[in-house]
Amino acid sequence: MELHGSHFIAGSLHPGKGEPFRAVDPVSGEEMTPDYFDAQSGEIDEALGRAEAVHVRRLAGNRNDRALLLERVADGLEEAGDRLVERAMAESGLPQPRIIGERGRTCGQLRMFSSIIREGSYLDVVIETALPDRQPIPRPDIRRWMQPLGPVVVFGASNFPLAFSVAGGDTASALAVGCPVVLKAHPAHPGTSEIVAGVITEAISACGLSAGLFSMVHGRGHGVGEALVRHPATAAVGFTGSQAGGMALWRIATERDAPIPVFAEMGSVNPIFILPAALATRGEAIATDLAASIRLAVGQFCTSPGVIVTVRGEGGTDFCDTLGKALSSEPAGTMLHSGISANYRGGRQRLAAIPAVEVVAEGPIGDGPCAAASALMRVDGNRFIDDPRLQAEVFGPSTLLVECSDVPEMLEAARAIEGQLTATVHSDSDSDELIEHKSLVHLLEERAGRVVFGGVPTGVEVGEAIQHGGPWPATTDSRFTSVGTAAIARFLRPICYQDCPPGLLPDELRDGPAVVSRRVDGQWEEPGSS
Amino acid sequence: MELHGSHFIAGSLHPGKGEPFRAVDPVSGEEMTPDYFDAQSGEIDEALGRAEAVHVRRLAGNRNDRALLLERVADGLEEAGDRLVERAMAESGLPQPRIIGERGRTCGQLRMFSSIIREGSYLDVVIETALPDRQPIPRPDIRRWMQPLGPVVVFGASNFPLAFSVAGGDTASALAVGCPVVLKAHPAHPGTSEIVAGVITEAISACGLSAGLFSMVHGRGHGVGEALVRHPATAAVGFTGSQAGGMALWRIATERDAPIPVFAEMGSVNPIFILPAALATRGEAIATDLAASIRLAVGQFCTSPGVIVTVRGEGGTDFCDTLGKALSSEPAGTMLHSGISANYRGGRQRLAAIPAVEVVAEGPIGDGPCAAASALMRVDGNRFIDDPRLQAEVFGPSTLLVECSDVPEMLEAARAIEGQLTATVHSDSDSDELIEHKSLVHLLEERAGRVVFGGVPTGVEVGEAIQHGGPWPATTDSRFTSVGTAAIARFLRPICYQDCPPGLLPDELRDGPAVVSRRVDGQWEEPGSS
Repeated sequence: MELHGSHFIAGSLHPGKGEPFRAVDPVSGEEMTPDYFDAQSGEIDEALGRAEAVHVRRLAGNRNDRALLLERVADGLEEAGDRLVERAMAESGLPQPRIIGERGRTCGQLRMFSSIIREGSYLDVVIETALPDRQPIPRPDIRRWMQPLGPVVVFGASNFPLAFSVAGGDTASALAVGCPVVLKAHPAHPGTSEIVAGVITEAISACGLSAGLFSMVHGRGHGVGEALVRHPATAAVGFTGSQAGGMALWRIATERDAPIPVFAEMGSVNPIFILPAALATRGEAIATDLAASIRLAVGQFCTSPGVIVTVRGEGGTDFCDTLGKALSSEPAGTMLHSGISANYRGGRQRLAAIPAVEVVAEGPIGDGPCAAASALMRVDGNRFIDDPRLQAEVFGPSTLLVECSDVPEMLEAARAIEGQLTATVHSDSDSDELIEHKSLVHLLEERAGRVVFGGVPTGVEVGEAIQHGGPWPATTDSRFTSVGTAAIARFLRPICYQDCPPGLLPDELRDGPAVVSRRVDGQWEEPGSS
Repeated sequence: MELHGSHFIAGSLHPGKGEPFRAVDPVSGEEMTPDYFDAQSGEIDEALGRAEAVHVRRLAGNRNDRALLLERVADGLEEAGDRLVERAMAESGLPQPRIIGERGRTCGQLRMFSSIIREGSYLDVVIETALPDRQPIPRPDIRRWMQPLGPVVVFGASNFPLAFSVAGGDTASALAVGCPVVLKAHPAHPGTSEIVAGVITEAISACGLSAGLFSMVHGRGHGVGEALVRHPATAAVGFTGSQAGGMALWRIATERDAPIPVFAEMGSVNPIFILPAALATRGEAIATDLAASIRLAVGQFCTSPGVIVTVRGEGGTDFCDTLGKALSSEPAGTMLHSGISANYRGGRQRLAAIPAVEVVAEGPIGDGPCAAASALMRVDGNRFIDDPRLQAEVFGPSTLLVECSDVPEMLEAARAIEGQLTATVHSDSDSDELIEHKSLVHLLEERAGRVVFGGVPTGVEVGEAIQHGGPWPATTDSRFTSVGTAAIARFLRPICYQDCPPGLLPDELRDGPAVVSRRVDGQWEEPGSS
C-alpha cells in the first residue's frame, strides 16, 4: 500500500496543495516519497468544524464505545506490522528494537486508558441529594461529573514517533474522555503519521463512531500549528517538544478572545545530585549508569540527565574519568532530524565557549548528516549558580558536570535551577546522608514533578502513579501530567446539575445501583451497590 | 478594642505609610476611622518572603495541625461577635441577618475544609510498588500524592465581606492544603478585614504554627495587587470580582518569567431559559421567583440572573408584567460601595441607550449615595444574538428579557452567549418539552459550570458536589471550582517519588496500614486496612 501524502479530515483524504515537503532519512540524508503539504486554512477549518460538531452533538460515543475504539486502535497498530516499523525507523533513525518497544508502549497506553474509561471512576461523580426540610433553606439536589472539554489539538512529537505522536498519550487521553482530536503531524515523520492516522480512521469507522472525532493535518512551518491553536473551536492543546515551541503555542493561546489551556511539556535538564558518601562508595557504578542514561536514544528523551551535581572530594576524579570514558568511547548515534542535530551542535558550542566551562571528554562523531558525538563538560558550582546559560537544556547526548565545594553549595545549585520534569538524588544507603540533607529533597520537590532516588530519570513508567510534568518551564501547568492515566484530567472539566429531572441524567448520575464508583451524600458507593 | 489600620505581616502589625484612605458607609456616605494605606513594596516583599520560607521549610503543619487551625479560625469568627457583624454591616450596607448568615457560611466552609483535610483522600495517593522481575525491564516503585503549590495571593471580594474575603473560600482552600496566604484586603471593607485577619493571626499563634502562614496587606490602587501577582514567590492567585479586574491579574501572571495559575471567578449573566409550556403554565410563579433572585443582595451575587430568554407566546405578557411589577415595587436597596453603584448606573444607561432595548419597568431609587433602582429591560431575540453589548454583565438588580420568535431562535441565543457560571432552564414537567429540546441542555452544558433546572441560580450550595466555575470569561480555568471542597484542587500539584527510601516517605505514602484512602497496585485501600 503506497503512502498518499493527503491530510485526513474527518475520515476523508484531502490531497495537499502548495509547496511540498518530504521526510528525510536522518541516516542517509535522503528524501522519501510522497510529497506532503502544509494544511490550508480551509482544511483546518473543516477539521475543527467537524470536531466541534461531534462535541456539541454528543457524538463521541459512550464510555464503552470509546474503550472499544482505543482497543481497536491498539490492535490496528499491531496489525500494521513491518510497514509501520520500517517507515518509523527510516524517518527517525531509531533502531528496530526501540520502535517495536515504543509500539508496545503505545498499544499498552491505549489499552490502559481503555480500562480506565470502562472503570469510570475518572468521572469523579459526586452526588448530594436534596434536603427539602433543611433550615434555614432547603438543599437542592446537586450532581457533579466530568465532561470533555471539547476539540483538542495535539502536536505530534519527533522524539517518540509512536508513543508521543499520532496515537500517543495525548490522543489517547483526549479520545478516552470523548474529546475529538485534530492532530498536527510532526514534519519529521509524516509517513509514520499517515499510517497511524489510517489506523485511527479505520478504527473509528469500524466502531461506528462519528468521523469528525479525528482529523490529521500536515505542516512544516509554524503557520499550521498557530492556526490550529487560534481556531475558535479548539478547546485545549497538547504538546511535547522544545521550550521555544511550547511557549510560542502557549502565548498564542493566551492571546485568543477566549484563552484555552495549553499543556506543553517542554523538557528539562533533569539534574542529578550525588551526595558525598555515594560518590565515594559508588561513584564509578553511578557514572556507568548515568552514561547509559545520557546516551539512551542519543540523548533525545525529555528526561535525559543534562546536569550532574557533585561535591569535590573522594571518588570525584574516578567518577569524572569513568563518565568521560563511557561517553567518549563510541559515536553517540544518529539524531532524529537535521534540526535537532544542528541545535545540539549549537548548544554544545555555546556551552563550550563559556570560559568557565571545560570540555572533559568528547566522543567520535559517526557518519551521516545527523550523527552526534557525546560529550562531558565540567564547571564549578559557583559559576553554575550565577549563570542561567549553564542551567539551560542542551537536547542531546551530552551532560554538564557541576562540581561544588561543599553540600551547602550543592543546595545553592539546587535552588538556582528552574522547574524540572525530574530530579534525582544519589545517597549512600549505609549512611544517614539523605536524612541529614533532607532539605535537598525538599528543594527538589519544589522544582520537579518526579523525584528519583538512586537511579536514572530516563525510562518513564506509564501507569497510574506516574507524574510526568513539573513547574514552569518544564511544563506550562504543574498541576497536570502528560504521561500515565492521570493525563486525562487535562481534557476534562467538572459540571454540576441542580435539580435535574431523572430522565435527563446520564446513567452514572442516576439514583439506584451505581454503575461507577461515586460519592453520594458523603459515602462511597461502588458499582453494583445501591 | 480600637481598629489600628496596620498591615499584618507574618504575625506582626506594620503601620501604613503614605496617602491614607478610609472605609465609607454606603448608606450614609460617611467615612469611618481609622486610616488605611496602600502597602509598600517592602511590606509585600516581607509578606511573600515569609510565606515562601514557610513553604520551602515545610512549616505549614501536618494535616491535623491545619484542620485545627481552620476550626480555630471558625471559632474565632464566632467569638468576634457583634463587633465583626457591626463593622461588616457598616462597611457593606448589608443587613444584619445577611451578615450573620454569611458568617455562618464562612465558619461552615472552614469546618468543612477541616474535615476534608483530616479525611485525607484529597491527597490522591496512588502507589505502584516495584516489580523487580518484570520483563523486559523492572518496574520501579512509584508513589504519587498532592503537594501544596506554594504561597497563594488571595484578593478579598467586596460582595461577600466574609465568605469570599479574608477568611473566605480561597483562604480556607489554600490554608487547608498547606499553602501560605498573602491576602489583599478589599478597600471597601478594610475594618472587617482587619478584624478577621486578627482572628486568623491569633489562631495561627494559638495552634503553634508559623506566623509566615498568613499576611494581609491593604491597598486601594491597582499597584498593590499587581505587585503581589508579579512577586516571584507567588505560586498562585485566587480572585473573585469583575471581569476587568480578573483579566488584568491573569494578564500580569502570564507576563511573569514563570507564569502562575490565576483562578479568577469573574461573574456572568447567568441566563434563564423558559420553554414555552413552562411560560404558559407557570409564567407568573417563575416571574415572582426570578424577581426575588434578581433583587437578592441588591443584585450583587455572581450568580444573579441578568438575562432571561423566552419565546413570545402564551403567558409572555403576564410573565413580563409580573416581573416588571415585582422589580419596580420598591427601592432595590443600597449597593456595596460607590464604585459598584456607579458601574451599575453606567451599565444600565448604556443598555437603555441601545435603540433596540425597551425599558419596561424601573423601580424607585432609595436614599443615600449608593442607592439603586431595579429595572426590567426587553429586547428581541435576533438583536440579542447579534449584539455582544446585550450579552455583557450589568452587575446589579436589573435584568434583560430576551423575547425570541421561536425555540430555534432561543437556541441561537444560547449559542451566542459566552462562558457562564450558571445557566437555568424552566420547562413544564407535565410535557416532554425538556426531552424534546435536549439540545438546549447540551448547549448550556457547554457554556456553564452549573445547570439549574426549574429554580434560580442564586444561593450557591457549599458542598462536595458543587461546581462554581465555568468556561472563559466566567472564570480563567473551567477545570476548577472556587466554591465547595473541590476548590482545594486549585492549589495542589502532584509529585511522585521513585524508589524513595521508606524512612523518607510521608506517613500517607508508606507501606503498612493506610492512613488515608489510597490506591495501591490498582486496588483501593481504606484507612485501617493494610
